Amino acid sequence: MKAVVYDDELRLDKRYLAPKPDKEDCLVKVDVAGICSTDLEIAQGYMEFSGVLGHEFVGTVEQGPKHLKGKRVVSEINCVCRKCDMCLAGLATHCRHRTVMGIVGRDGCFAEYVTVPEHNLYEVPDSVTDEEAVFAEPVAAAYQVIAQCPVDKRTKVSVVGPGRLGLLVAQVLKTTGCDLTVVGCNAKKMEICEKKHIQTVHLDELVPKRDRDVVVECTGAPNGLDIAMELVRPRGTIILKSTYADRGQMNLAPIVINEITLLGSRCGPFGEAVNALARKAIDVQSLITKTYPLDKALKALEHAEEQDSIKILLKC
Amino acid sequence: MKAVVYDDELRLDKRYLAPKPDKEDCLVKVDVAGICSTDLEIAQGYMEFSGVLGHEFVGTVEQGPKHLKGKRVVSEINCVCRKCDMCLAGLATHCRHRTVMGIVGRDGCFAEYVTVPEHNLYEVPDSVTDEEAVFAEPVAAAYQVIAQCPVDKRTKVSVVGPGRLGLLVAQVLKTTGCDLTVVGCNAKKMEICEKKHIQTVHLDELVPKRDRDVVVECTGAPNGLDIAMELVRPRGTIILKSTYADRGQMNLAPIVINEITLLGSRCGPFGEAVNALARKAIDVQSLITKTYPLDKALKALEHAEEQDSIKILLKC
Repeated sequence: MKAVVYDDELRLDKRYLAPKPDKEDCLVKVDVAGICSTDLEIAQGYMEFSGVLGHEFVGTVEQGPKHLKGKRVVSEINCVCRKCDMCLAGLATHCRHRTVMGIVGRDGCFAEYVTVPEHNLYEVPDSVTDEEAVFAEPVAAAYQVIAQCPVDKRTKVSVVGPGRLGLLVAQVLKTTGCDLTVVGCNAKKMEICEKKHIQTVHLDELVPKRDRDVVVECTGAPNGLDIAMELVRPRGTIILKSTYADRGQMNLAPIVINEITLLGSRCGPFGEAVNALARKAIDVQSLITKTYPLDKALKALEHAEEQDSIKILLKC
Repeated sequence: MKAVVYDDELRLDKRYLAPKPDKEDCLVKVDVAGICSTDLEIAQGYMEFSGVLGHEFVGTVEQGPKHLKGKRVVSEINCVCRKCDMCLAGLATHCRHRTVMGIVGRDGCFAEYVTVPEHNLYEVPDSVTDEEAVFAEPVAAAYQVIAQCPVDKRTKVSVVGPGRLGLLVAQVLKTTGCDLTVVGCNAKKMEICEKKHIQTVHLDELVPKRDRDVVVECTGAPNGLDIAMELVRPRGTIILKSTYADRGQMNLAPIVINEITLLGSRCGPFGEAVNALARKAIDVQSLITKTYPLDKALKALEHAEEQDSIKILLKC
C-alpha cells in the first residue's frame, strides 16, 4: 500500500506492507487524514519515531467485529494496556505501555490502511462529513483545556497562537462564554477569529498587564511561553499545548515569583469532540487550507509548514 | 549604621544612613538575620536590586505603636498597598505595587536597623529563641507547599535538593505523614534527613520511575526541574521553589506529554511558621552552620556559597 514513512528521512513508500490486524485490532481503510504540527516535528526527528506518520483520520472499518464492519469511524490515538497503574487509575491516555498512532511505536494513518484496537474507535454520526470528522482528534485536544481547567463567564482567558490547534481551542473556549482574546500575528488566522466574534490582539500591539486568569499557549514556538508569562496574572494558570522540544534559554523565575500554575495538556475526550462536531458547535470547515491526494503527501507536508496554512488534509 | 549593600557590587557600608520610619512603618533593631539562596543570587545581579540585602530576620521594635514597642518580632517580607486588584482578591503577596525587603525596591535586614510596615510584623513568643525565630520566613515558604498542594498519607512525595529550603520543606511534608523521600547528593545534608527518619536517595542511585504524585524542586540548580520531570507521575504535580534565573537549554515537552502540573511557589503563611517554631514542630537548630557578626558579613556570604553550608546567620 501507499504510506508516508519516516525513518531518519521522509518518503512516500508505494509498496509499504499493508497492516494485518491481530485479535484486538480492526483494519480501517483511511478515507481522509489531517496533518498536525506534531507530524511536522516528527518529520524533523522529534520523538525518535520511525514508521508511518499521522494520527488524525476518518476511515471505514474493513475487518473487525460485526457491529463495526463498514462503519465510518474516528480513533483515539493512544493504544493502551488497560492493566497498568495509570490505566487502572482512569488515566489510560498515560498508559505505561502505550503505543501512539504515528507517534510512539505504532504505524499511523498517512496510508491506505491502518490498524486500531476496537475500543479506540468512535462511530461517526451521518450528519458529520469526512472533512469534519477528521478533526475529531484536535477538537478533543481542544476540549481537554476546559476539562483540565474549567472556566466560566467571569474568567479572563487568552489564547496565544491562533494556529491549527489554537483556532479550535479558541472556539471551545468561546462556548463557555468566558472573556476571551486571541493573541497572534497572522492576519488570515486573526480574521477567522474575528468572523467568529472572538476578540483578537496583534502581537505587535499587545500591552501585557499580567491580568489574564488563564492563558493557553498554542504557538508551537519557543517564545510562546514567555508571552504567556507576561499575560497571566499572579496565581493564574498557563495551559501548555505546544510540544516544542527545544525552547532555548529559558527563565522560569516568573513562574515561581508569580506562583503561576503551568498545566501540560495533550489528548482529550473523543466523545465530546464527535458530539460537538455533530452539533456543529465547532466550525472546522473554515480551517481547511487544501486537500491533497496521498500521492502528493510530501508536497502536502511542505504546504503545512507555511505560515498561512492551517489544516492540510490528505485524501487517502 | 553598618549595612551590607549591593549596587553592582557587594560591600559592607559602615556609614549607611539609618532608615527613618514613616507613618505606617516601624523601626526595628535587627538582632539576627539569615542568609538565603535568593540573597546570593541578588549579589550576582538577579532582580537588578540595589540597596541593603537580606529579608530573613528577628529584631526588636524601637519605634512604632505602643503595643509593639520593645517587642521581639519577625516580618512578612512583602510590603503591600492593600488597594490593588491582587490585594483586594486576598493575594496580597502578589500586590501590584509591592516592595519586597532586600529584593524589590526596599532596603533589607543585613543592617543594624530596618523599617517595616506595622501590619507586616509578627510578635515572637518567648519560647522561640532568636536562632529559631530567624527561620520564620523560610519555614513559611516551606508551609506554602502544603497550602498550594495538600498532601496526605497516600501521597507519594519527593523533595529534590535538601538545601537550606529543601530541609525545611521536607520537615513540613513529614508532618503530613505522606510517603516521603528526599533526593540529593550532599552526605551531610542527607544525614540530617536520616536523623529525622526521612528516607533519602542519593542522586547517583536514583532510578526514576515517574511514579511520585508530587515532587518539590528545591535544588536552586538548572537541572533540578529535569530530575523532577523524571520522578513525577503523569498528571502529577511539580512544585517549583527554585528561582534559578537562567536554566539554559530546556525541553518542556515532558510537561505536555505527561500533562504535569507545574506550580510556582514563593512566600508562605507567617502565622503558621511562627506557631510551628513555637511548637518545635520544625527543627531549625541542626540547620545552622555558623553565625557571623555583621562586620564579617561578606565572609558569611562567601561561606553560604559553599556546598556543605546550610544556614549562615548574621548577628547584627
